[in-house]
Amino acid sequence: MSSNADVKKLDRSYVFHSWSAQDLIDPLPVHSGEGSYFWDFEGNRYLDFSSQLVNLNLGHQHPRLINAIKQQADTLCTLAPSFADKTRSELAERIVNAAGSDTFSSVFFTNGGAEAVENAVRMARLHTNRRKVMAMYRSYHGATSTAISLTGDPRRWANEPGDSSVVHFFGPYPYRSPFYSSSDEEETTRALEHLNHQIQVEGPNTIAAIIIESVVGTNGILVPPPGYLEGVRKICDTYGILYIADEVMAGFGRTGTIFAFQNFNVTPDLITFAKGVNSGYIPLGGVVISKPVRDTFSTRSFPGGLTYSGHPLACAPGVETFKIFEEEKILEHVQQLAREVVAPRLEQLKNTHDCVGDVRGLGLFWAIELVKDKNTREPLVPFNPTPEENAPMNALVAECKKRGLWPLTHFNRMHVAPPLTISADELNAGLDIIDQALSSVF
Amino acid sequence: MSSNADVKKLDRSYVFHSWSAQDLIDPLPVHSGEGSYFWDFEGNRYLDFSSQLVNLNLGHQHPRLINAIKQQADTLCTLAPSFADKTRSELAERIVNAAGSDTFSSVFFTNGGAEAVENAVRMARLHTNRRKVMAMYRSYHGATSTAISLTGDPRRWANEPGDSSVVHFFGPYPYRSPFYSSSDEEETTRALEHLNHQIQVEGPNTIAAIIIESVVGTNGILVPPPGYLEGVRKICDTYGILYIADEVMAGFGRTGTIFAFQNFNVTPDLITFAKGVNSGYIPLGGVVISKPVRDTFSTRSFPGGLTYSGHPLACAPGVETFKIFEEEKILEHVQQLAREVVAPRLEQLKNTHDCVGDVRGLGLFWAIELVKDKNTREPLVPFNPTPEENAPMNALVAECKKRGLWPLTHFNRMHVAPPLTISADELNAGLDIIDQALSSVF
Ligand SMILES: Cc1ncc(COP(=O)(O)O)c(C=O)c1O
Ligand SMILES: Cc1ncc(COP(=O)(O)O)c(C=O)c1O
Repeated sequence: MSSNADVKKLDRSYVFHSWSAQDLIDPLPVHSGEGSYFWDFEGNRYLDFSSQLVNLNLGHQHPRLINAIKQQADTLCTLAPSFADKTRSELAERIVNAAGSDTFSSVFFTNGGAEAVENAVRMARLHTNRRKVMAMYRSYHGATSTAISLTGDPRRWANEPGDSSVVHFFGPYPYRSPFYSSSDEEETTRALEHLNHQIQVEGPNTIAAIIIESVVGTNGILVPPPGYLEGVRKICDTYGILYIADEVMAGFGRTGTIFAFQNFNVTPDLITFAKGVNSGYIPLGGVVISKPVRDTFSTRSFPGGLTYSGHPLACAPGVETFKIFEEEKILEHVQQLAREVVAPRLEQLKNTHDCVGDVRGLGLFWAIELVKDKNTREPLVPFNPTPEENAPMNALVAECKKRGLWPLTHFNRMHVAPPLTISADELNAGLDIIDQALSSVF
Repeated sequence: MSSNADVKKLDRSYVFHSWSAQDLIDPLPVHSGEGSYFWDFEGNRYLDFSSQLVNLNLGHQHPRLINAIKQQADTLCTLAPSFADKTRSELAERIVNAAGSDTFSSVFFTNGGAEAVENAVRMARLHTNRRKVMAMYRSYHGATSTAISLTGDPRRWANEPGDSSVVHFFGPYPYRSPFYSSSDEEETTRALEHLNHQIQVEGPNTIAAIIIESVVGTNGILVPPPGYLEGVRKICDTYGILYIADEVMAGFGRTGTIFAFQNFNVTPDLITFAKGVNSGYIPLGGVVISKPVRDTFSTRSFPGGLTYSGHPLACAPGVETFKIFEEEKILEHVQQLAREVVAPRLEQLKNTHDCVGDVRGLGLFWAIELVKDKNTREPLVPFNPTPEENAPMNALVAECKKRGLWPLTHFNRMHVAPPLTISADELNAGLDIIDQALSSVF
């Protein structure tokens, strides 16, 4: 039996960690998980309010997902993309049907979100014969060259210069409007005017695609105000621009619908997904492709690929995910928890804590935005804080962990993104801890 | 029970295939695999001389790899990269030790080869504070933006413009020397002079890294002639350029050593790997990082990452792979087969077939280069052939498949890259089929 110390020592000796200064991290060794919880090697239990990296939609160690993996492992672990595979085809069929088989034709599978984004952009560029892609500030699209260039957060900076055909624009953010608006309605109108204006000055027929997280995830759980995505769709249609919905984080039930765009009255041309498709039990992502884009590559070769495209062992828990969603009524459960637990309780947090400036979200995808002052809305810590500036958030995180909750924070926000299988009791227990931690720290 | 027709129909309806015109492909449905063989749904058996995409180093459905996956699945399927994981750490330790713990410090895990290359380049650029990366013509490095820009084969063309800080150079290719040389020795000298010259005119201190497949894979099984890699290493040291060895295809025993560079007297600064690390049973790749590069990120944050970095379920068959290599003496087996079966038999093919111009390779990684005329060395089909021009190769492939062999061809070459676990009898049977197919077609 290993100890926390053993595992941490081995990790610190040999594992290079992402997004980190290697000598300044102190990773928690994790021994096991079940449902909404995970344990370290000393038996300390944490309620997972971040679903790992917001990928663990069906929770830790779901017995049906494990079984699906084992069964597929006994049948056929791996197969090159050029063959036809039953499990892969079945998952593709289910995804196309979930996205809407009127519009969508087929699925190109990748290993994760960044590769999905890279390939969606590749398709859009070749379909339109244009180069430029527009993406939002306050967004994350992955870390390969084009994906990190599209990313609208500080993680892009150290990787610049990147893809030179990327242009960023401001999306709606009602609580901190870049457009001086004072209502959701005004925010929508102005955000669309801004986008339209920027397209004019960039040159409409130089733009291949606009990529948008249907609900902005890491960068703030920014739910688009009513009419915004519909307006983007209209602008895209006007100029022959493709609309790519990045559903890597928001997809597969996180917002209470299979795809987050289904909360709005729009259909994109390309959908990128990963994470929730199989809860990340095995790396998997992909692009759902509309019929016209698919037809661009009917007799012309698609110039992209990867060794593990459509990996059978990754697809098996994907097929099982759809079955679990249906049989365990996951979407209904998420909608009910959102309505009956998260929305009212976060509203209450806002009313009882001076430091809670805004709460917002959909399904089990919420943000608590912390401020120094409710009137000025000055963020509790600045955008892209230094470790020193981030001290108040670090204190809050430490307090949550002490009480058995593993929180997800980003800049001045705490997100609420537990597994979709969480029970109302577990959810309430986690929200109790956040409530207590806020009281204790501020 | 499904049929070939059912599975193909589902595939053609919903699965978008890589590197393909979607209406012009006819993928074989695969039902199961075992060792060196796989079967379609009608019971037709194929001897896998391509190891899928040269990833299946331990063959189809290795019981120990399956068991390792099942055991890890019961323990912990997935974990975010920011935690410490026992299996991940154990695999990292084994990889560092295999690469050489004098030079190498740690491993950054990715999902596959392209992401490994992207991150190696990111590290090299930040470590050297230079942008340019030099890569070979006749190379493949993956399909994300920077990886496809580095790629020196026609798959890059449709993706241009790409990363503007990539420069291509000619590597050694004794059979078709770009340097008018007439011996391996001369090829080495001139290839190094060429590289050195190109570095001078590019500007030595603008170049972050040179990336080289230790043995060029898809683009020709080009084994570097004696002294070449050693010369590259020296040039890199002279100018403070990092040497990245791309071992995605050649690594993990394919050439008879764990890493292919270990056939030569060199040590790179960064090693990219994937495929053979776990035979592709679960998507996994990564970068092995030298101590100085690791130390660049000791107190400075590494600006890269991905959701599934160091995925426990992917690492478990990786750990098992090392155990199998040791206990089943895989490297010795590969070396013996190369020496006693492949080398003499391919030499014989060259002597008995007019169309076989050159044979070359290491371990279980060989090319048979087909020509119209042994004297002129004119290739049987041109570089980047059209489907029509490729007819002779297609005929050869069809003949092999008819006889139960699944071959790997690229342009005017047939590669020999079976699972490393293949028996001498199976290997001989496959080579018999190639012999017969060559006689039958040409
Ligand atoms: C919206 C979005 N797109 C893309 C990605 C990149 O996915 P991956 O980390 O699997 O490459 C992420 C990851 O968090 C994401 O949230
Ligand atoms: C040498 C080399 N590098 C990189 C890659 C890309 O790996 P992946 O397909 O896993 O992205 C490959 C794939 O064949 C390869 O052979």
